[in-house]
Amino acid sequence: MAGTETGATAVIRGARDAGIEVCFANPGTSEMHFVSALDQVPGIRAVLGLHETVCTGAADGYGRMAGKPAMALLHLGPGLANGLANLHNARRARTPTLALVGDMATWHQPADAVLAMDIDSLARTVSEEVYRAGAGGEDFRRLAERAAEARGVTTLVVPHDVSWTRFVRDLAAAMRAASRGRLGIYCGGKALIDAEGALRLLGQIAAASGADLLCENSFARVDRGHGLPKFRRVPYFPQEASAALGKYETLVLVDARRPVANFGYEGGPSQLVTQSEEAVWEIDGDAHIGTVLKLLGMELQAGRIVPFKNCGGVFAGTSRPLLPTGRLTAAAMCATIAALQPEGAIVVDEALTSGTAYWEASSGCPQFSHLTLTGGAIGAGIPMAVGAAMACPARRVINIQADGSGLYSAQGLWTQAREKLNVLTIVCANRTYAILKLELAKQRIAPSNGPAARSLTDLGHPNIDWVALAAGYGVPAVQAGSCEELARQIEVGLARDGPMVIEALL
Amino acid sequence: MAGTETGATAVIRGARDAGIEVCFANPGTSEMHFVSALDQVPGIRAVLGLHETVCTGAADGYGRMAGKPAMALLHLGPGLANGLANLHNARRARTPTLALVGDMATWHQPADAVLAMDIDSLARTVSEEVYRAGAGGEDFRRLAERAAEARGVTTLVVPHDVSWTRFVRDLAAAMRAASRGRLGIYCGGKALIDAEGALRLLGQIAAASGADLLCENSFARVDRGHGLPKFRRVPYFPQEASAALGKYETLVLVDARRPVANFGYEGGPSQLVTQSEEAVWEIDGDAHIGTVLKLLGMELQAGRIVPFKNCGGVFAGTSRPLLPTGRLTAAAMCATIAALQPEGAIVVDEALTSGTAYWEASSGCPQFSHLTLTGGAIGAGIPMAVGAAMACPARRVINIQADGSGLYSAQGLWTQAREKLNVLTIVCANRTYAILKLELAKQRIAPSNGPAARSLTDLGHPNIDWVALAAGYGVPAVQAGSCEELARQIEVGLARDGPMVIEALL
Repeated sequence: MAGTETGATAVIRGARDAGIEVCFANPGTSEMHFVSALDQVPGIRAVLGLHETVCTGAADGYGRMAGKPAMALLHLGPGLANGLANLHNARRARTPTLALVGDMATWHQPADAVLAMDIDSLARTVSEEVYRAGAGGEDFRRLAERAAEARGVTTLVVPHDVSWTRFVRDLAAAMRAASRGRLGIYCGGKALIDAEGALRLLGQIAAASGADLLCENSFARVDRGHGLPKFRRVPYFPQEASAALGKYETLVLVDARRPVANFGYEGGPSQLVTQSEEAVWEIDGDAHIGTVLKLLGMELQAGRIVPFKNCGGVFAGTSRPLLPTGRLTAAAMCATIAALQPEGAIVVDEALTSGTAYWEASSGCPQFSHLTLTGGAIGAGIPMAVGAAMACPARRVINIQADGSGLYSAQGLWTQAREKLNVLTIVCANRTYAILKLELAKQRIAPSNGPAARSLTDLGHPNIDWVALAAGYGVPAVQAGSCEELARQIEVGLARDGPMVIEALL
Repeated sequence: MAGTETGATAVIRGARDAGIEVCFANPGTSEMHFVSALDQVPGIRAVLGLHETVCTGAADGYGRMAGKPAMALLHLGPGLANGLANLHNARRARTPTLALVGDMATWHQPADAVLAMDIDSLARTVSEEVYRAGAGGEDFRRLAERAAEARGVTTLVVPHDVSWTRFVRDLAAAMRAASRGRLGIYCGGKALIDAEGALRLLGQIAAASGADLLCENSFARVDRGHGLPKFRRVPYFPQEASAALGKYETLVLVDARRPVANFGYEGGPSQLVTQSEEAVWEIDGDAHIGTVLKLLGMELQAGRIVPFKNCGGVFAGTSRPLLPTGRLTAAAMCATIAALQPEGAIVVDEALTSGTAYWEASSGCPQFSHLTLTGGAIGAGIPMAVGAAMACPARRVINIQADGSGLYSAQGLWTQAREKLNVLTIVCANRTYAILKLELAKQRIAPSNGPAARSLTDLGHPNIDWVALAAGYGVPAVQAGSCEELARQIEVGLARDGPMVIEALL
């Protein structure tokens, strides 16, 4: 199945599995793969109408009496236009109806060929929702189920090339064809969560294809640690990120939007993916990612999943940093946390500039979940730790918290106290907006050291007293001025019930 | 339960039933009914945050780890604004999150009180979808389920008065308070379909409250006939429709949008409902209508459903017209069809001007489904009959078809032949666009009888030969020039397998 599933068969299979039984059709060139798919995936009766208005009117009548949608298969823009009046009646009758409309191949759309029209605008005039299929194995069953629940018309537009693409087989071929070391799998969203063995499978696929596994810089959650895949985290700043991504000949994006620069710096890039369209593959997040990966794994191994033991290098070992000693630096703080965090920890990481070393330091820890700031809107860490602790009461939460950002929502500590949550907050007390100093330098902004610049990037004068602040919110707190002290207090914090704050003096 | 369910308890009950377990809250005046609802409907843990950014950030953290949404209860516009940055992070993290935001009472919104803001615009900046609760018993469980499936933030805005409205009890009280004969129940959509005894219940409610049952003029489907409620169909033209609706002191709309004039005629109305807002009640179509009606029936009868036998007058008896004789008029055609149509028939009615008499004539027929043109886009009948016949192969379909409209999609007859569908099409061959002549007269447009007016409203010169046309599409056809001939041919058509066309010469 992996090899022969096309966009068209995936759509028809999804519709059939959602309970659709009839397709009123008047297809043309761009819908011929659907004609074949209706034969390949049995279960939907194909009924010809001599004009599209017959197809759409029949779908309306069917839906009114059956209480579930029929499909109307229409020939791109002109076919949709022909069927539009009866889709309008279906809209007014609030009849669930699934209009399936072809379109020019994606790469042929700029040519504005004779039959090209603005299908989306046409469709929106009669539709509750308009979807446009990509080639990433979307969950068409779910889409058809939503169409069945809708009161009115749902339109799915499928470009010609999407209908013929044998996604999994073609993707596997592209991955096989990539030169060794020049294939990257860039993951986001659900692809980074260890549900139903998905991460293990992803690692096996990387091992089998010689791919590097990459992850978004601003990820929502990555499950990491011993036995799970090691991801390379794409750097924060655009030049470095662009270089990290640019070295791949072929890029596979799994549930990740195409990375862009967080800001458009003078002379800097906007898009971080610069490969040609043919070199970039996207597995859509609305797909059953597990299914796509499973099929891909089988395809790459000719039906055989590569055994775990042959994947050396892709999966993390058990290396953890030694406990550092002496003066507390940001890097030493990261190493100390990574050396001590328990199995199953949830690390809420809003450490920002102070946390740079944590990614590498923690790669061989016992399995844990790593959460970061996704939208750049600072002040997420303390509240996010509240929510994570409530979602997983049996797991320990460690919040590595930049001090400037923490002050945006320090009152969240009170809820940690009120609800007796097992959250250990480690405040990175560098007493400065270090990121702003970095930005001044990066953007070569002068003067970078005037009174205003100093005043607006400095958190001292007076220093924030996190111990007093936390105590004010009912959370016990201590200061740690050395590596040894930090380690000792982390052990205390992880052993106690309820929240605690450590102000790490960096 | 009927009496105490408020908008707030309905929302909380829906969220709880959809699996939501936590509500991070910082409520104010307009959310206090939710505070009470969280106590009344147990199962959702209420967690206080000292600032809304704590609530939204906690919901983000919870959702990332639990894989299902928490609610964040926010104090109207300013509260949403306070929580916006962490909702933005949740959007970027694609965390399922349900933001529940109060608003001013609907009737207080025009006053633009101090705390009023454009909540919808604020919410749209971070939300996949923004809903605004009405007072019609929406299906909040379904909404919460959709929020759980969404990748990102779903916002539900609930005006203060909606949160406190005890919909069913207040509606029952309003219905009881209406003067005898001045209560109208105006139905559309699902309220007109006999699923799970809903129509019987509706009739019992009408009988118990002394209400008139009304139905939309352009309905998608009404299940009618002996033993089912008799609905008064609101007239087509706005003056008459407005008069028919204006006589009610209290109007209850069940799954129907507020009726409007089909066109804005010179000097004519736009809105057909002119009662004050307090006199109009809406039961939303997204609600579990069956549940609302059941609760309403119990409330009106103090827990006892009124027995069927006491509902005389509301339900249709078995009266059918006698078979007319002699010259075939539009009214005689309607009576003939109503006299002969079998139990379980599906009547696809695009008769338009020729079908005026059919509604009354058919009221005592054996139970049948009646489908009409909903969007005014003519050419629906023949295709709709195709779909209805395919949805219900065991039922007979009778398509009463205006000739002018039928010519828009006559090629649909071919699909009826190809698929051997039991569709009997009765073409109302008045050989004129009679509706256009009526419009010329109604709008007092002069000259109404010039050569252009005659040419553009006449279908003769030459006459369409429907017998030949149908034969060309593979459907046997006959002409009927008298009542007797029409009756005989209808009996033939209903007895045979496959489609047939009768051209009724009016």
